[in-house]
Amino acid sequence: MNDLRPLSSTDRTTLHRLRERGLTDRSALHEVLDAGIICHLGVVIDGLPVVLPTGYGRIGEALYLHGSSANRSLQAAAGTEVCVTVTLLEGLVCARSVFHNSMNYRSAVVYGTARLVTDEDERLAAVEAITEHLIPGRWAHSRRPTRKEMAATAVLAVPLDEASVKVRTGAPKDDEEDYDLDVWAGLLPVTTAIGPAEPDPLLRPDIAVPPHITALETALPHCP
Amino acid sequence: MNDLRPLSSTDRTTLHRLRERGLTDRSALHEVLDAGIICHLGVVIDGLPVVLPTGYGRIGEALYLHGSSANRSLQAAAGTEVCVTVTLLEGLVCARSVFHNSMNYRSAVVYGTARLVTDEDERLAAVEAITEHLIPGRWAHSRRPTRKEMAATAVLAVPLDEASVKVRTGAPKDDEEDYDLDVWAGLLPVTTAIGPAEPDPLLRPDIAVPPHITALETALPHCP
Repeated sequence: MNDLRPLSSTDRTTLHRLRERGLTDRSALHEVLDAGIICHLGVVIDGLPVVLPTGYGRIGEALYLHGSSANRSLQAAAGTEVCVTVTLLEGLVCARSVFHNSMNYRSAVVYGTARLVTDEDERLAAVEAITEHLIPGRWAHSRRPTRKEMAATAVLAVPLDEASVKVRTGAPKDDEEDYDLDVWAGLLPVTTAIGPAEPDPLLRPDIAVPPHITALETALPHCP
Repeated sequence: MNDLRPLSSTDRTTLHRLRERGLTDRSALHEVLDAGIICHLGVVIDGLPVVLPTGYGRIGEALYLHGSSANRSLQAAAGTEVCVTVTLLEGLVCARSVFHNSMNYRSAVVYGTARLVTDEDERLAAVEAITEHLIPGRWAHSRRPTRKEMAATAVLAVPLDEASVKVRTGAPKDDEEDYDLDVWAGLLPVTTAIGPAEPDPLLRPDIAVPPHITALETALPHCP
């Protein structure tokens, strides 16, 4: 099922600097997209750039976004070329020199024409993928969308044809002559901590925290 | 010193839907920008949108970005209108219905013409602000940029004239008839955890973790 074509190497997806940070295999792209929670959608509206954060989901080689069918940016995006960027910030890199301070991260930049999805089966599958991406297990647990709710929802698909993945990992890299400086250098890991779950104050008191929520909570990092 | 003008209300910074999520005071904008770590810079290149993650800093009513002077996107951005978005994801909102699943977040979207900064004093102040934004206290601790390093650095300024701030907080909001459903609902807080610090393997063994690094580590959330 996996599409193992390498990522495209168009001019804009080819790293011109710091090439060692570029990855071109498709599995790296999937990993970044699957690990992210939100993306930043870039659209050109009246010739000017607009960047909006939003949730997303992936089915195979397509990225799905959704929103209110009244959402102006989604409306503007439909049928046009968009840029979808997912960034995982993983560390603050403290070098001995200001110039070499950096961040550890994994990022994916996807370019493609956003297709307004009209097929109801694909629309529902997309909403399921977006829901499951945000909160795995949620689709089976909660009330599914009604026809009216789906009518109020716009779904866009962006193909994973043209994309680039960029990664920086590891320790700071200083200039040779700076390693003797009296400056602390190292890494501050950055992680996204989820939980602990806070029940809705209006929750029926007989309803316990379900396993799919507990599973997400266990993503809590670093606690001794 | 604080500029207390309200944020602009141009058409594109006025929320057309979910107006209750919009804030128009300038201090809310500063708060979001100061709390974020990275931004997503949107630029139009050859008529198409490009969205790139990058660090930033704020001095008063200007946002500063920097990068290699060979960076194509920064070059393309200079003198053009850009969009800079900072998103703080603060919670996964689990509603009883898929349709009302949501995220808690604070986001700032800034529109403006990116000015290539050429004054050396302003360039240095900008690099200091970007460094201090990422790792407060780092500027005083580490080796400052040389003239050569500054020459290899491009700095852009984006004025905080036109911006919108959007916030969602609190519990899920379900349809009245769904509150009786047998579905767990609530909030999964999302926090950005920093640390514990990992010294560079090449660090001189007599150099201890300095207070400005320890201070960042204390941002660790949720640990008992």
